[in-house]
Amino acid sequence: MGVVIVDLSVSLDGFIAGPDDGPEFPLGRGGEGIFAWMNASEANSGAIISGRRTFDIANGWKDGHPIDAPIFVVTHDPPTTGEWSPRVSFVTDGVEHALELAQEAAGDRTIGISGASVAQQLLRLGKLDEIQVSVTPLLLGGGVRLFGGFDGPIELEQTRVIESEGVTHLRYRVLYD
Amino acid sequence: MGVVIVDLSVSLDGFIAGPDDGPEFPLGRGGEGIFAWMNASEANSGAIISGRRTFDIANGWKDGHPIDAPIFVVTHDPPTTGEWSPRVSFVTDGVEHALELAQEAAGDRTIGISGASVAQQLLRLGKLDEIQVSVTPLLLGGGVRLFGGFDGPIELEQTRVIESEGVTHLRYRVLYD
Repeated sequence: MGVVIVDLSVSLDGFIAGPDDGPEFPLGRGGEGIFAWMNASEANSGAIISGRRTFDIANGWKDGHPIDAPIFVVTHDPPTTGEWSPRVSFVTDGVEHALELAQEAAGDRTIGISGASVAQQLLRLGKLDEIQVSVTPLLLGGGVRLFGGFDGPIELEQTRVIESEGVTHLRYRVLYD
Repeated sequence: MGVVIVDLSVSLDGFIAGPDDGPEFPLGRGGEGIFAWMNASEANSGAIISGRRTFDIANGWKDGHPIDAPIFVVTHDPPTTGEWSPRVSFVTDGVEHALELAQEAAGDRTIGISGASVAQQLLRLGKLDEIQVSVTPLLLGGGVRLFGGFDGPIELEQTRVIESEGVTHLRYRVLYD
């Protein structure tokens, strides 16, 4: 089965977005500096699992998603009006079912995780295989954190470090007990 | 004047210690994995500024501090009993005065900052010149955070990346406005 990976850009203090993120400021106040490049792992994904908040902030990718793959949006309350990408499906019975659907769609290709909340849920379930963070030279002081909501420690294995244009891409395998 | 640098080991989720840190568990529950090596920048320091909490957790370095340099401990309430290293001085009138004393003692040598709280205060004052974090392959989920207590964003310049034994040392210069 495809590897389940979250690949996000973070500030040095661990935020994926600054305060007050929303459709108007997708990366929050001060957060636009986080996202200066395309994340490489997602580009090869055979399916994407997204949280509802990411879907809303991205306006449903109605103008297209950079990756041509099915997007499974986990939500208890799918929208009934509005526009969104034809690649979007809503999954109302939880992240585990979204993962099954994504695995079926992706085959052996990577499953990319969009959004901190879905990544955190999969981590708690022991289903997140890899983490890539692109550490941006920025301190935000507040906003949306990539990690939280679990009891540690969880050990990782650092598998790759790539330095590029002032940003460092750190990749890890999650070592569950 | 000497460069003011904080050089600490952090988990990937940004903690310098796990929950419930104290003299008995200096790095908190699950935090012992953070600290597997000596931090290189401090080794060259001509003076150290420490917070009171770090002093307490380290038992006043009564058995010696790994670096032979004067240690200025910022505290409003210095201890009157107990034992501590003869290199320790207590500074009761704030971190700025501790910085003056440390600069005088260090000359052109680096001033090392021990403890997140002192580093955060110096960052707010625009007096922290450099940050080195040694990112450890570990998620702690809770504990003592390296960064907080300021309004961002603060821009950094990444000056060095060193990968070593599964840990990545990231070094930054702080770019104040």
